[in-house]
Amino acid sequence: MGVIIRGGTVVTAEQTFRADVYCEDGLIKAVGADLEAPGGAEVIDAGGCYVMPGGIDPHTHMELPFMGTVATEDFFSGTVAGMAGGTTTIIDFVIPNPQQSLLEAFHTWRGWADKAASDYSFHVAVTWWDDSVHRDMGTLVEQHGVNSFKHFMAYKNAIMADDEVLVNSFTRCLELGAIPTVHAENGELVFRLQQKLLAQGLTGPEGHPLSRPPEVEGEAANRAIQVARVLGVPVYLVHVSVEEALDAIRRGQDSGQAVFGEVLAGHLLVDDSVYRHPDWDIAAAHVMSPPFRAKKHQDALWHGLQSGRLHTTATDHCCFCTEQKAMGKDNFAKIPNGTGGVEDRLPVLWHHGVNSGRLTMNDFVRITSANAARIFNLYPRKGTVQVGADADLIVWDPAAHKTISARTQFQKVSTNIFEGMEIQGLPVYTLSQGVITHALGESRAVRGAGRYLNRPAFPPVYEAIQKRNALATPTAVAR
Amino acid sequence: MGVIIRGGTVVTAEQTFRADVYCEDGLIKAVGADLEAPGGAEVIDAGGCYVMPGGIDPHTHMELPFMGTVATEDFFSGTVAGMAGGTTTIIDFVIPNPQQSLLEAFHTWRGWADKAASDYSFHVAVTWWDDSVHRDMGTLVEQHGVNSFKHFMAYKNAIMADDEVLVNSFTRCLELGAIPTVHAENGELVFRLQQKLLAQGLTGPEGHPLSRPPEVEGEAANRAIQVARVLGVPVYLVHVSVEEALDAIRRGQDSGQAVFGEVLAGHLLVDDSVYRHPDWDIAAAHVMSPPFRAKKHQDALWHGLQSGRLHTTATDHCCFCTEQKAMGKDNFAKIPNGTGGVEDRLPVLWHHGVNSGRLTMNDFVRITSANAARIFNLYPRKGTVQVGADADLIVWDPAAHKTISARTQFQKVSTNIFEGMEIQGLPVYTLSQGVITHALGESRAVRGAGRYLNRPAFPPVYEAIQKRNALATPTAVAR
Amino acid sequence: MGVIIRGGTVVTAEQTFRADVYCEDGLIKAVGADLEAPGGAEVIDAGGCYVMPGGIDPHTHMELPFMGTVATEDFFSGTVAGMAGGTTTIIDFVIPNPQQSLLEAFHTWRGWADKAASDYSFHVAVTWWDDSVHRDMGTLVEQHGVNSFKHFMAYKNAIMADDEVLVNSFTRCLELGAIPTVHAENGELVFRLQQKLLAQGLTGPEGHPLSRPPEVEGEAANRAIQVARVLGVPVYLVHVSVEEALDAIRRGQDSGQAVFGEVLAGHLLVDDSVYRHPDWDIAAAHVMSPPFRAKKHQDALWHGLQSGRLHTTATDHCCFCTEQKAMGKDNFAKIPNGTGGVEDRLPVLWHHGVNSGRLTMNDFVRITSANAARIFNLYPRKGTVQVGADADLIVWDPAAHKTISARTQFQKVSTNIFEGMEIQGLPVYTLSQGVITHALGESRAVRGAGRYLNRPAFPPVYEAIQKRNALATPTAVAR
Amino acid sequence: MGVIIRGGTVVTAEQTFRADVYCEDGLIKAVGADLEAPGGAEVIDAGGCYVMPGGIDPHTHMELPFMGTVATEDFFSGTVAGMAGGTTTIIDFVIPNPQQSLLEAFHTWRGWADKAASDYSFHVAVTWWDDSVHRDMGTLVEQHGVNSFKHFMAYKNAIMADDEVLVNSFTRCLELGAIPTVHAENGELVFRLQQKLLAQGLTGPEGHPLSRPPEVEGEAANRAIQVARVLGVPVYLVHVSVEEALDAIRRGQDSGQAVFGEVLAGHLLVDDSVYRHPDWDIAAAHVMSPPFRAKKHQDALWHGLQSGRLHTTATDHCCFCTEQKAMGKDNFAKIPNGTGGVEDRLPVLWHHGVNSGRLTMNDFVRITSANAARIFNLYPRKGTVQVGADADLIVWDPAAHKTISARTQFQKVSTNIFEGMEIQGLPVYTLSQGVITHALGESRAVRGAGRYLNRPAFPPVYEAIQKRNALATPTAVAR
Ligand SMILES: [Zn+2]
Ligand SMILES: [Zn+2]
Ligand SMILES: [Zn+2]
Ligand SMILES: [Zn+2]
Ligand SMILES: [Zn+2]
Ligand SMILES: [Zn+2]
Ligand SMILES: [Zn+2]
Ligand SMILES: [Zn+2]
Repeated sequence: MGVIIRGGTVVTAEQTFRADVYCEDGLIKAVGADLEAPGGAEVIDAGGCYVMPGGIDPHTHMELPFMGTVATEDFFSGTVAGMAGGTTTIIDFVIPNPQQSLLEAFHTWRGWADKAASDYSFHVAVTWWDDSVHRDMGTLVEQHGVNSFKHFMAYKNAIMADDEVLVNSFTRCLELGAIPTVHAENGELVFRLQQKLLAQGLTGPEGHPLSRPPEVEGEAANRAIQVARVLGVPVYLVHVSVEEALDAIRRGQDSGQAVFGEVLAGHLLVDDSVYRHPDWDIAAAHVMSPPFRAKKHQDALWHGLQSGRLHTTATDHCCFCTEQKAMGKDNFAKIPNGTGGVEDRLPVLWHHGVNSGRLTMNDFVRITSANAARIFNLYPRKGTVQVGADADLIVWDPAAHKTISARTQFQKVSTNIFEGMEIQGLPVYTLSQGVITHALGESRAVRGAGRYLNRPAFPPVYEAIQKRNALATPTAVAR
Repeated sequence: MGVIIRGGTVVTAEQTFRADVYCEDGLIKAVGADLEAPGGAEVIDAGGCYVMPGGIDPHTHMELPFMGTVATEDFFSGTVAGMAGGTTTIIDFVIPNPQQSLLEAFHTWRGWADKAASDYSFHVAVTWWDDSVHRDMGTLVEQHGVNSFKHFMAYKNAIMADDEVLVNSFTRCLELGAIPTVHAENGELVFRLQQKLLAQGLTGPEGHPLSRPPEVEGEAANRAIQVARVLGVPVYLVHVSVEEALDAIRRGQDSGQAVFGEVLAGHLLVDDSVYRHPDWDIAAAHVMSPPFRAKKHQDALWHGLQSGRLHTTATDHCCFCTEQKAMGKDNFAKIPNGTGGVEDRLPVLWHHGVNSGRLTMNDFVRITSANAARIFNLYPRKGTVQVGADADLIVWDPAAHKTISARTQFQKVSTNIFEGMEIQGLPVYTLSQGVITHALGESRAVRGAGRYLNRPAFPPVYEAIQKRNALATPTAVAR
Repeated sequence: MGVIIRGGTVVTAEQTFRADVYCEDGLIKAVGADLEAPGGAEVIDAGGCYVMPGGIDPHTHMELPFMGTVATEDFFSGTVAGMAGGTTTIIDFVIPNPQQSLLEAFHTWRGWADKAASDYSFHVAVTWWDDSVHRDMGTLVEQHGVNSFKHFMAYKNAIMADDEVLVNSFTRCLELGAIPTVHAENGELVFRLQQKLLAQGLTGPEGHPLSRPPEVEGEAANRAIQVARVLGVPVYLVHVSVEEALDAIRRGQDSGQAVFGEVLAGHLLVDDSVYRHPDWDIAAAHVMSPPFRAKKHQDALWHGLQSGRLHTTATDHCCFCTEQKAMGKDNFAKIPNGTGGVEDRLPVLWHHGVNSGRLTMNDFVRITSANAARIFNLYPRKGTVQVGADADLIVWDPAAHKTISARTQFQKVSTNIFEGMEIQGLPVYTLSQGVITHALGESRAVRGAGRYLNRPAFPPVYEAIQKRNALATPTAVAR
Repeated sequence: MGVIIRGGTVVTAEQTFRADVYCEDGLIKAVGADLEAPGGAEVIDAGGCYVMPGGIDPHTHMELPFMGTVATEDFFSGTVAGMAGGTTTIIDFVIPNPQQSLLEAFHTWRGWADKAASDYSFHVAVTWWDDSVHRDMGTLVEQHGVNSFKHFMAYKNAIMADDEVLVNSFTRCLELGAIPTVHAENGELVFRLQQKLLAQGLTGPEGHPLSRPPEVEGEAANRAIQVARVLGVPVYLVHVSVEEALDAIRRGQDSGQAVFGEVLAGHLLVDDSVYRHPDWDIAAAHVMSPPFRAKKHQDALWHGLQSGRLHTTATDHCCFCTEQKAMGKDNFAKIPNGTGGVEDRLPVLWHHGVNSGRLTMNDFVRITSANAARIFNLYPRKGTVQVGADADLIVWDPAAHKTISARTQFQKVSTNIFEGMEIQGLPVYTLSQGVITHALGESRAVRGAGRYLNRPAFPPVYEAIQKRNALATPTAVAR
């Protein structure tokens, strides 16, 4: 049986128009004025509401084993929380240990994700290098629908990729038509600053941002972008949090390079004063990397979204409860890094983006959904409202409002970085695969209903890059 | 009777997909695989071809009275030439003389344009200021479908708008929901440099670029953008030709401001060495303002298109024949300014943009059609391929090739700035209002078939700007 | 009789070294270790102190008639206050009314300045244009020792210079070997914003900064620099107060252009929160143009001094008492613009510059004295400590400290923008023309002892500029 | 017996004035008009000439063992050539092999340098790290007058310093008051590009610049600067050759950071077309790293000198003859890297800098001598003309001219990168330690007459940096 959404205003990245939307068999079957729906179709009254593509969160870490513990949110609870907030697709990360087979890790994560309630996909991290990694990257792209690989420039002595790994892996990505992504922080500097601060007796959470100043991110961002430039490969920077990194992105783009930037809802709205909160638990609850930043960076990041320098918004959703955070009671470097947000991203961006006049509604769809779909080659299956697309939709009431709180959230974690924030504009219905999975504040999500999304190699940006690289092949001088 | 385009690949700014397109009653009626068409529908075989929205040239001057003569290309011949090259909409300019009523001038131009073979619209220039101009701007927006006004910062002692006019008119545009556009050159400097060069005896066409160096444009671009910023109004810069102006645009955008930039096909591909050509006629044929520039600017402009800093491409099509150019035989400042291009824009941009890997095909549609439609509020009626849109379409053969020449062009002028350029990729069919108006090199255009396009006020960008301005209203200190 | 300064450490813009300094006949006669001084020489014990060239304040307005009143500080009291704070030379401004003869105004100001206690010179403002202005500029340079002319881009309907005046005057400066200086604010925008704010009922001093936002200064700074660039003339920007203007300066410099920047002590240390002070008198006491700015601009300005982008520091000393400020009780636009500072500049820059590690002591001399002397061609007569130079010297005690207050100042005005600021580092002795004019907190200044300083045309920067311009002369194409 | 230079015009970085200069005992004893000199003093007639401090070349490699051979120019011949061109001080490099003791290498180089004819000093390279390196750095600074350490970010598998070495060594420099210097090229990328090009069969010298594109240098420059910024240490970049690196320097400086930049005469004047010369020997003769660059970089570098972004000029003088270059006949990566220039730097910079109006004569002294002396703490012993300074002087005839050629040079190498360049402005006399060592084209240099220059730690820039770092120490939150 189908679902018809009546009386709403459809908003995509390009257009805003009055139309009904009819969904069946997981797909959008019709978009138009005064649609007729088959008898028996479930009817959603979207009067006064906007109908938009469900959010895509391209950066989550459900049930991640990290820093000696495991993130509290699993693929089921996490996707339920996502749909509560209008996000219907997540792209999570497979993170092999150094020396671990990429394929083996991939299958492990695939197993964990079986319980997901909404569609999902995986980036795979390249944390080391040998011939097997080279080979497994090929297998993942060609047989497993992976088209993006992640590189951590931080986390020395753990999963850090040095320049040699970056160059190897970026080169391989180019061959395969995959997008390399980077967590950009200079791991050597972070390591030294941590040591220095701890040696000075500065052990509290306020040491966390001090060990990761903006230059640490700006340097790594610039390095990743320049390496990509020299190799002729596109590059995607996750969680851009500082003006210095944004400037590096701009420089790349302004030279004609394909550089994509992601920003987290948290970095747009939370500043670094939280780390000096007198309550250790509250300060520690905000420990994530890169850390929250001084307010001037927030302005820069919003401008980055407005100008199209930054393309996507995400959450880096990776939840640890108060007792887990306490592992770093005597050493900030041992506080598990991560915060939540998969449930809150769309509402906070609507409130602070659209209601404030920073973004149009079309911009909102662009940065919460359409761009992620395009970059990671899920478009137009995801990321828009058109006939034939997956029926992942949200019905958004611009008049609805609430106060965000950990006490009332679906997210499975004891804190919320937006605690107490009053927002206006909320999803009242969420559809995944044409089924209502969240309605009027209640979840109807089904464990395991989510599907793994194969993402084809060679997303559109490669069309131009391949021609460009071919034309740039150097020639020898005949002597 | 309808037209069905079979077997092609549809390319829009967002997507590339195999589909047939059926047109009837001037509109696109269906887009899909293996469409059935009514018997009697004309069939276009688009096998191996791309089906794209017709180009929009947002900057032409058909039959313009200028510098003591009149541009050779009229609205009929000009739109015929446009359709020969895949352009199905032009936005021309109404340019009142100082002290002339805007409405009167508007009606004059409307009369001239009756003969147009494709759809068209008008920007209206604000060349002076008094209450009647203020009032007429309102009338034009509210009753005549004008949503953009043009300001010349050059042409001192003629149509130049000084800061006072700019501030008045920009303020009025904001009230009306219109887009102010500017020709950015510092008219005072141009005037002095012309005088100085002529006094030095430097009277040939090589004096033209010397009288309008890059800084002259960069300064004016920055000024217009900052004035717009202070007033809270979006702004559109026509014919951006230098890195300095592009940098001014970037600075605005990177501060979150709505700044749009247009670049001419000529500025992307022709450099300033032409002005030192030993043949006076050839040098003079290239006299337009801003002039063609040193090669480094071309790189910058291409990067601007790639990065989204520049939004639209145009031609400033304004044709003067060799004998008209000769009016400035003894004084470069009297050479009628203008060059052609409405016929060539799409082919040269495809060849040098898409074939070179600078742009994807989707980028090509974005910068030749979709962005102009969005900015000037014609989207999705124009600028895309979707059901309900105007059936202004081109069928593009990526294998077709030719050598551009004035001898073989439809443009009604004795020269061509791209003379001798070999290009690959050409429109084989052009449809306007669902009718084939150009086919396999032959025009089927009909004089007067074009319609005047009303463009509604308050294009999408205003959605955010109005909220932003409202929130920025200052408050007094209670004392 | 001479004066010998014993046991101090000499600090110039280039060096720091232990040496005694012997002065006689107004000049420095010897610099060296363990100097012998003639019997009867007055001895200053400079143990633990630094001996530096006296400060040059290149921007003051003593007894200026402005906005319907006259600045309270006259040339005697103002130079006394200057020497109390270590400043031994001021360059003030002759500001003719539009249509007033430049020469006549120059002689008027010369008369007023007869009472000065320290040496002084004059910039002359070009507030209008005709042949007499052109001629008078020549006379001033050739016969009256003027080598700099000032241009106000603000103050519409009063002394504002539009582009035509700028181009005329800059061109004339180039012929004469003089430095054009500009007060950079877009006067048209200021005028409109004032009108708009007043129309909204926003009449208090908080309206002042709202009517002169950073973009207003950034635009004008860029315009002045680009005009100078096109004409091939050096340019000096007075009171740079915002990052936007500094960026314009950087762009010029980074293109090889000779652009000089001045920053006021007040803009480095006072922020715009003062305008929202609940006490009208306090808010109004801070009204000057450009206004004090948000804190981020202060950081940028300090960086500008550190990096050499900005060259000089000044005060724009122009004092109005509380009752004078009250002229604008109902209309912020009528509050006389101006604040003091000639006495405070060196101490506040030492404290916030040198003590904070932003500047070395050599940098301090560079930005308080040497650079002003070089740019305005008084070097090495002023601006350094060397044999043959004028004996304008200060003995600086880095351990001395005080709290700045209007109650204890020499400045003749009822307020102080640095009121309550605690600083460490003060001049204990000031010498002008080899005579102790201020000692241990007491003035020994003599009315009328100051001399008018002739400043020769063609300062050093012109050496390169003239060659460069000659080589850049364009050539015609032979046809 | 002394030497008196009569009738010349003294030019320093700050001033230009007519004066005689008297030298004795290696020092300048008097500077003044119409000096009386002791009978028997040697008299130089400097009428029509400029008297300037001798050049300091802060970057040479005499008799360097490198890439399997040894540079042809030894410390004697090299300093003779230097003085022939007006350079009286060189700072060469001690380059220990990885695992070699720094002290041992230092003593080896000291031994080689005994034969030098002019004064010299040494930077010491840090090519690896362990406790002994840490200790030896201290010994070198405290006992051997070394105040600068060099880091190669290129030359993977040889002397490359990775981030860990950089962070260790920069930290140590800060403790010791030394200046870290860097050769900025991303060694990983160079290595891969070399492999890739060779694999494509591109083995000629034209492969050299292709393996080291501008981004490779820009990335490393930015990284070094950001590492220095985070650690709070000043940093000096040797041989800046591209706009990208200059931009990185600007960003650092514009944030208030102490970043110094050096540029080679060759990079200012030779472009990368040389690598495609049909004659292999000529192409190979230009192989050095970073390579010569496209012309647009030359403009940027000149602007960098003009604006004060770049501080010093050098040569990286490291000579290999044609037969040595031939070692890389089949593999450009094996061509010994290096070119000459110590003899040519001052003449080519005068001709292309001063004669062209890019630089004033004071600028010329600043960038050839004074700045190097200041940065490396030799000022005012070197770098200026004042009483008490070392009598290293040049008498410069602005009318003298010649054509540069390997056939007529003092440099001991078979080629010259400026071959055939006609220049005007040459040193006619060079004095080292008050002795005429080069006169009218003939060398009077004495083998072994040069002295090793101890350079004290904590150059002036540290005065501010130490205060700044102390004030920036973070504090813990009391919980
Ligand atoms: Zn991360
Ligand atoms: Zn993450
Ligand atoms: Zn125009
Ligand atoms: Zn035009
Ligand atoms: Zn002013
Ligand atoms: Zn002033
Ligand atoms: Zn090197
Ligand atoms: Zn070297």
